Parts: sequence; C-alpha cells; structure tokens
Amino acid sequence: MVALESPSRLSTLHCSACGAAYSAFELQRVSACCNVPLVADYDLFEPLGRDIIDRADPSMWRYGALLPLLNPDHKVTLGEGFTPLLRLPRLAARHELSSLLLKDEGQNPTGSFKARGLSMAVSKAKELGVDGCIIPTAGNAGVAMAAYCARAGLKAVVVMPRHTPQAFKEECYWYGAEVELVDGLISDCGARVRQRNADGALLDISTLKEPYRLEGKKTMGYEIAEQLNWSLPDVLLYPAGGGTGLIGIWKAFQEMKALGWLAPETRLPRMVAVQAKNCCPLLETYAGRQANCHAYHGSPTLANGLAVPHPLGEAMMLRVLRESNGTVVSISEEDMLAGMRDLGQQEGLFVAPEGAAVWMAARKLLGTGWLHPDETVLLLNTGNGQKYMDNVAGRAFN
Amino acid sequence: MVALESPSRLSTLHCSACGAAYSAFELQRVSACCNVPLVADYDLFEPLGRDIIDRADPSMWRYGALLPLLNPDHKVTLGEGFTPLLRLPRLAARHELSSLLLKDEGQNPTGSFKARGLSMAVSKAKELGVDGCIIPTAGNAGVAMAAYCARAGLKAVVVMPRHTPQAFKEECYWYGAEVELVDGLISDCGARVRQRNADGALLDISTLKEPYRLEGKKTMGYEIAEQLNWSLPDVLLYPAGGGTGLIGIWKAFQEMKALGWLAPETRLPRMVAVQAKNCCPLLETYAGRQANCHAYHGSPTLANGLAVPHPLGEAMMLRVLRESNGTVVSISEEDMLAGMRDLGQQEGLFVAPEGAAVWMAARKLLGTGWLHPDETVLLLNTGNGQKYMDNVAGRAFN
Repeated sequence: MVALESPSRLSTLHCSACGAAYSAFELQRVSACCNVPLVADYDLFEPLGRDIIDRADPSMWRYGALLPLLNPDHKVTLGEGFTPLLRLPRLAARHELSSLLLKDEGQNPTGSFKARGLSMAVSKAKELGVDGCIIPTAGNAGVAMAAYCARAGLKAVVVMPRHTPQAFKEECYWYGAEVELVDGLISDCGARVRQRNADGALLDISTLKEPYRLEGKKTMGYEIAEQLNWSLPDVLLYPAGGGTGLIGIWKAFQEMKALGWLAPETRLPRMVAVQAKNCCPLLETYAGRQANCHAYHGSPTLANGLAVPHPLGEAMMLRVLRESNGTVVSISEEDMLAGMRDLGQQEGLFVAPEGAAVWMAARKLLGTGWLHPDETVLLLNTGNGQKYMDNVAGRAFN
Repeated sequence: MVALESPSRLSTLHCSACGAAYSAFELQRVSACCNVPLVADYDLFEPLGRDIIDRADPSMWRYGALLPLLNPDHKVTLGEGFTPLLRLPRLAARHELSSLLLKDEGQNPTGSFKARGLSMAVSKAKELGVDGCIIPTAGNAGVAMAAYCARAGLKAVVVMPRHTPQAFKEECYWYGAEVELVDGLISDCGARVRQRNADGALLDISTLKEPYRLEGKKTMGYEIAEQLNWSLPDVLLYPAGGGTGLIGIWKAFQEMKALGWLAPETRLPRMVAVQAKNCCPLLETYAGRQANCHAYHGSPTLANGLAVPHPLGEAMMLRVLRESNGTVVSISEEDMLAGMRDLGQQEGLFVAPEGAAVWMAARKLLGTGWLHPDETVLLLNTGNGQKYMDNVAGRAFN
C-alpha cells in the first residue's frame, strides 16, 4: 500500500497559554495543561509559495495546504469563503476617507462568516470519526453547524438563548437539527451543553473548545491579503463576540509573514475589536476596570453575535490588540441601527447589526483622531441582515 | 483625445420576434416594431478565446467582453455571480441518480439570482444616464433593484403585491427605496408601474422590458460551462416565472457554441421549466390548453417568484423548450415544502421554494422515465430560504 501524502502541512497543536505540544492527529478539545484553547501549527519553513493557492477554487479551500484537513474526501463544503471585498466610495466620500473597504461575509452559505469555521470543524469531525456535534450559539454559528452536519450526515444539537430571533431557530429546524432553548445568554447555553454532553457522546464545538473553527476563520486573513494583491489595510475593524475571527485573521497574517508571502516591510493592520455597549467584556478588561471577563454581566443586544459575556479567547484577543497597537470600541443599539441605514442607503448593503457596529466604530475613531482619513480602512461585516429581521423590523426610518 | 476601445463586444440589439435591428448605444425598451423584448448581440466572429475570462474576478463580471457594459467605470457591483456549483451526493444516492448538481444562487448579494440581472440593468441605467428606476416585482427583483440603485446613487421605486412576505418589503426600506403595495399579482403591479411612470421619468426595468437584465442572467450559463470544465449537464431544471434565466442560460449556450468555447460534439442540455401548480401559464400553453398566457388566471404561491401569470417572454421560453427538447412541470405547494425538507435535511441547503420545486420536478421526471438515472442533472436554486420565512415558518416538520 502506498501512503499518499496529504496536501495539508498541519504538524502539531499547541496550548495557547504555555505552548505545550499536543498531537494534531487525534481528537482534542482544550489544553489539558492550562484548560485554554489549542492552536494548530503548520510546517511553514519548507518552501511553500503563493502558487499553492488553488486559484480555480473560489472558496476558502483554495488555501488547502494551510488548512488542517488531511484527506480532501472528508471536506464538507457548501462553497464558503472567498467573499467579495467591496469598495465603499459613497460612504468614503461623505466621511472624507480616502479608502474604505468592506469584506461581505453575508454572502457565505447560511448567510454569515460562521460558515467558514463550521465547514472546517465539521469536516474535521468527519475526519476524526465523530457521530454528531453540539454547540451553544447566539444564532449564526448554530445555523451553520446545523447545515454542515446535515451535509455531512452527522447528528446536530443546537442550544441557543430563547430570545434569539425566530429566523435562526427555524433555519435549524429545516436542517433537521435538534434545537434546545435556554433562558439566558450564550454563556448559559454553554453550561447547558456541558451538562447535556457530560458523557462526551457528541463533539462540543463551542468557540475555541476545539482547534479547527479558528482555522476556518483565519482564511479571512488570507483572502484579504490576496484580494488586496498582498498588501494589507492600515486598520481592520472586526465585531468581536467570541473573537475567533479576530484571532484567526491575526494568525493568518503571522503565517503569511513566516511564509514570505508578505513583503518584509509590510506593516500589519491595527486591529480594532468592536463590541456592543450592552455586552462589552473585552472593553472593560482592556480599560482596566476588571482583571478579566469571568464575572462580567452583559445584556442582550440587536447584534446577537456580540452577546458573549465570557469569551474563552479573551486573553488571545487582548494579545492581538496589544501586538497590533489596536483598540476596543463599543457601540450603542441606536448607533447600530444608524449604521445599518448608512450602509443600506448609501452602498446597497443590508448588513447584520454586527457589521453596522463596525462601521459606526470607524466613524467614532475618525472623530477622535485615532483613525486618520488617509488610512486604508477595512470593515468586516459578519453576516447579512435578513436573519435579524425580528430585531430590526420597522426601524429602517429614523 | 484618444478613443479608448471598450472591453465589451456589444454590437447591436434585435427584435426577438422579427429580428429588426436597433441601436445598442442608446436607451431602448421593447421593440417598436413588434412590441416584444429586444435582445443584445455581440461580435462573436473575431477570435475571442476563453482566455478573455478574467479568472481573478470571482463574479459574473469575469465575462466582461460578452456583457453589454461599455465603460467599466459604470459598473455597479456587490460581488454578484460565480456562485457555487455543488454536488448533492446524499440526495443522488437516495434517488439512484449518478450525478446531481445544484447551482446555489442564494449566495448572491441580496440572496437571489436577481442580483445578476439588476446589477447589469442598473449599471446600464447609470451608463445611459437615467435618474432612477422603477420595477414591478414578486419580491427578489425589487430587493435587488433597491440595493443596486442605492449603490449607484439612483432613485428606486418598487411596486409589489401586498401579500409579499414582509422580509422583502423591509429590505427595500433599508435600501431607502420607495415601496408601493398593490392588491393582486405581479401583472397588476406591472399595470401600476405603467400608470405611475406614464411620463417615462424613471427607467422601467420590468422583466424583458429592457434588454440588459437578460445579459446579467445569461452569465449563469457561462458559469455552468466553466465550472463543469466546458462540458454541460444532460438536463437543466429551472424555476420559470418571468423566465429571463431560462432564456438567458440558453442564450449563453448559443453564444459559447458560436465562439467555439464548447466542443463541436457537445450536446446542449434539455431545458425544463418548473412552475407552481398555483400559477403555471407556460404549462397550459405548452400543453395546448390555451393559445397563449394572455388570459391566464393564476393564484399566489409560496414560491413568490413563480406567481407570474402573463410572462412577457412566453414565446421565447417556448422556443427554448422546443429547441432543447425540454418540457414543463408544475409542482404543488405541499411538494415544495417536501423539497425544502429534502434539501435542508440531506444536503444542508435552505433553499427558496422555487429551488425546492425544481428538485421535486426532477423527482417527478425520474418517476415518469423522462429523466434517466444515469444522466447528469443540474438544479438551479434561485434564492435562499430566509426571505420566505413568513411563507414557510412552522412547516419544517411533516
């Protein structure tokens, strides 16, 4: 029998706190040493040029060598990734910005950026031979998990807050998932998942509790560089709930530097984490008003994806902000609606409140002078507005 | 001053009934001679290889030379087109089909295939210098027009049936469009548009009343061929309301033959028009139960896009069916829901009822033997299911 070489350069996993190594070739959850997220490593030192990108594949899977799936037969895909990077000339002109870009993750399967992480995690779940998956979710991740599990023929259990808009629940039903509703925020759903899955019969794919959603999310970073012809924006604004995308994009930038895909003089963007005023644990820690988010109390927000009071990746997010000279901004509910009107009326984009928050954060940082009008600014819109209709109906007018 | 050559090979327009020529370089509506749709022609005889495809552009605009926009600066884009062509292995296995494919148009901006036609029509409207656009719509086309007009900075008036799901209306509001509701079907909205726009102040971009939406839609045909490495499926099933997509895909196949992009022995697919039992004017004419659709009475359906009782392109659709040895199938409301469950639970796709109807039509044609299990079958899903939530909520279970 001939051993076929995998296209993936996956080599090992490491503990994100102490660096201890773990096998990348068996089922892992968080690190046994420090109880924190595990992160995937690749062999990046053997020559690996940009020509390994499969340019005929208009999805995140074009970067296959830098993704953790070993056998392409296990790929569970609905065509996720390689989403448009759009110029926003009308809003830029209004606000005297020289270059304003938006990456529109709403054009993914299931309508959000969650498709990337869940396509990857469910593919790895299939590769590692699990029977089904369980997830606590603010909405979009549960929908994506339900879809990819259906596609893979795996059982799916989705646990979400009772106040989640009906559209998220309904879509899970159509995928044949089991949906459990919990009174509370996503942290309460997480507790319910641990209780329900105490026997470990299902793979818990809570944010950062397995190492592969992060690998799906990082593809946003590769795409941004490729779509900007291997340059990068000066400032990147990202709506950070669980924060996997923020961490993943930064990881992609580091990998591309190690690979020599970015010119040595390339300055990495200042990364801005955008939160809701109603739930901004990262801001409170960043500002020194609490040691960490463990005891933070948040309330619901129109931006369901930002209602994450105890993000497991808090330390990793803070590291990204520190390393990138970034910052955190929080946005009110009213301002999110104003941002949705701006993007809808001026640029024809019906974005999730999370994406609108990011635009309003840019305006705020322009106002304070933290962001300069001649800088290239990239907004990450994580989802389309349709599933939030329950939250925003009737608010299109001032 | 140097005259720069346009990348477009657009040459002229012709009347779809008598063939009379019209200028492609000024504003046109239907043909003055026969009062039927005008169709765009290109200079296809000078060598034009597949290398003119801009492979770095993952949108419908990669086929720029074969599109009618003369000046790329007028392009109004949100990243539409080049949507995934997915294999459906689980449904294929269940129904003993050897090759089942689905083109997922739900991943377009604004969530439907209408993005293609409206991106093109609004780009041409901008190029031709109009101030605004007006459209009668069953829902998706109005949303798309509102989005592209916002993006272009043009006024938008959308006229839709009062029973259209709220999500379509709301999305138009977010784009800043004016929405007028009419008691009746899209044909009644068309009458209202003619009355309201009697002075011609706005460009009426009703289906096939201007020649460019068709050009946007035809890109689906180019993409199918490119994504199948320049082969074609044996059978292509399409949900035909106004029918622009059916006509456009067939036009693309003819153009590719003329260009030599398809091998001379390539058999073009048999084209199947899928309608709702509640509104199937084409089926009635095709079956010889009426001379044409002019006096047809239809009723509303879950598949809002199929509630088109008097399609202006009826003769053109019938020609496609005849030339391709195709057929027409109609699907009940209950069967659409069953199709949505099949695609959701088995393949992780939450499709519009229109797309579900297409899958159920394939099952029906397999049952009658018209379609053979060893044929390659392509389903066209025109939109994502989210905007139809009003229609289908609570129906995920049998």
